[in-house]
Amino acid sequence: MYKINEIQSLVNIEIDREIDRIKHTKPENLYEPMAYALEMGGKRLRPVMVLMATNLFDESIEKAFPAALAIEVFHNFTLLHDDIMDQAEMRRNALSVYKKYNPNIAILSGDAMSILAYHYLLKCNSSERNEMIHLFSQTALEVCEGQQLDMDFESRMDVSISEYLEMIRLKTAVLLACSLKLGAMASNAPNNAANLLYDFGLNLGIAFQLQDDLLDVFADQIKFGKRIGGDIVSNKKTFLLLKALELADDQTKAQIQDWITRTDFDESEKINAFKNIYNRLNIKMITEELISRYYETSIQICKKIALPSEAKTEMINLAEMIMNRDH
Amino acid sequence: MYKINEIQSLVNIEIDREIDRIKHTKPENLYEPMAYALEMGGKRLRPVMVLMATNLFDESIEKAFPAALAIEVFHNFTLLHDDIMDQAEMRRNALSVYKKYNPNIAILSGDAMSILAYHYLLKCNSSERNEMIHLFSQTALEVCEGQQLDMDFESRMDVSISEYLEMIRLKTAVLLACSLKLGAMASNAPNNAANLLYDFGLNLGIAFQLQDDLLDVFADQIKFGKRIGGDIVSNKKTFLLLKALELADDQTKAQIQDWITRTDFDESEKINAFKNIYNRLNIKMITEELISRYYETSIQICKKIALPSEAKTEMINLAEMIMNRDH
Repeated sequence: MYKINEIQSLVNIEIDREIDRIKHTKPENLYEPMAYALEMGGKRLRPVMVLMATNLFDESIEKAFPAALAIEVFHNFTLLHDDIMDQAEMRRNALSVYKKYNPNIAILSGDAMSILAYHYLLKCNSSERNEMIHLFSQTALEVCEGQQLDMDFESRMDVSISEYLEMIRLKTAVLLACSLKLGAMASNAPNNAANLLYDFGLNLGIAFQLQDDLLDVFADQIKFGKRIGGDIVSNKKTFLLLKALELADDQTKAQIQDWITRTDFDESEKINAFKNIYNRLNIKMITEELISRYYETSIQICKKIALPSEAKTEMINLAEMIMNRDH
Repeated sequence: MYKINEIQSLVNIEIDREIDRIKHTKPENLYEPMAYALEMGGKRLRPVMVLMATNLFDESIEKAFPAALAIEVFHNFTLLHDDIMDQAEMRRNALSVYKKYNPNIAILSGDAMSILAYHYLLKCNSSERNEMIHLFSQTALEVCEGQQLDMDFESRMDVSISEYLEMIRLKTAVLLACSLKLGAMASNAPNNAANLLYDFGLNLGIAFQLQDDLLDVFADQIKFGKRIGGDIVSNKKTFLLLKALELADDQTKAQIQDWITRTDFDESEKINAFKNIYNRLNIKMITEELISRYYETSIQICKKIALPSEAKTEMINLAEMIMNRDH
């Protein structure tokens, strides 16, 4: 079996090769922004998950390369369009695509990336290819639904925590779950194992997104890549904010409402005000506890997969790595 | 065999049923704009082409319903995103999606529509389903390439007519060609026939787009649905403009350049100026001649399909109907 860092190297080689092909495809204004988006890289966590899932059942993981590429290209397509919608000018310490080029180019390159993802999937030789494309389509639609809910929440003050959890399940977790299941399907894994991997990914994904909410407020600026407090400034209905609204006394609630409705404010002042409220209400610890619950559930599910426990060690290492990304 | 109007009715029933399903899917802000876009309707030419192609080889055309839906939903996705990129506020005498809702909703609903198109295709029961999805993906990517070239041309004054023809092949013609070929594939038509249908659609599609360029300037406002002269106002590099630049003497060329570079102008005055130039240079007749050439080529190709000529009559009627849409 491959180690995580070996899989990461394989993923990087494969994606960089594809970036090179994309860079030389015309028209330049359509394909170069795709290459730019894919080059920004990040940890390429999802394709790593695809290949690691394949590797649980099969030594030859190259059969899952097309699925790994499809997932990474699709994920970057969603980032590209999300950045337009959120007017996020920076991504991973670099200009986001719509800012480096322009919104029209970002819309169209994103469109082409989502189509390209299917293109890769069609290259899969697995006998389960149709089911794989079906799962991918279902997941892709769910990701759009999640993004829409996220946008809907912006103008709502009555979002419940269960609505929020459903939103991040759709927006973030299903794609991690799908990555693992696709990897399993590429190697014709037993259905039961493939489904457990899906559920493992789903719980891990929710933990991952909650952690992302937490890092927005409490991360180290340099490692984080994005601006600290971005969610606070833009009034994102994160778990932290919703929990604070739930726990706050009337005076604090009024204070939160006031900050949210202000259009003219000093950003650092707003971020500090929220940090103080969160500290007073113990939000960091509450969030960490919820993260732990989802994380522990994911590990328990992973352990249920009918494979020798050594085989699952590397997958659990990956889960740990994902969750400790700030240290 | 079905008559065109029977196929149109079947298409309308099928699409309206799907619109109803979409309308009741949550989140509302994602799915309602899709239903709105699909309801605006238009002639639903492409799904009609899918089913007519199927019907050439098979009496039971319902097997091609998923492919017909896929094509119509994909086509409307491209219109939806194109309208954002072109800032086109009207479409078929109604507000375009981004204007009725907002650009973010239009981006995301469009994204979901492109995924939904694959979702439908996956429901096809044809033994050639994989080849169908592959053709569809290839075509979808080409449509994006065509749209990018169209945008690239906006800032270029040196676009050649052959570059222009390649752009409309990608942006418009391949989707008509793909519609016909998918219909043929859904009924397991012989390869040769499916390829001839593709080429028939390609030539017809180029004729269709050239006609669209012509109608932008010379159509009847009410029937056209869009604003007359929109291409002129926005300096679109249409066949008419490129041919005029080719034929114009230095003085007229300077006049055209002057209009194109002006940022502050009266729209009607600009439209009239271009109409006068086009009339002086006989552009209408030259365009009509080129349209006829592509149209005649398409009919010749259609006639080559190894089927009794009665079987092809309805297809040729459709081609005629498409090209006479302004009368």
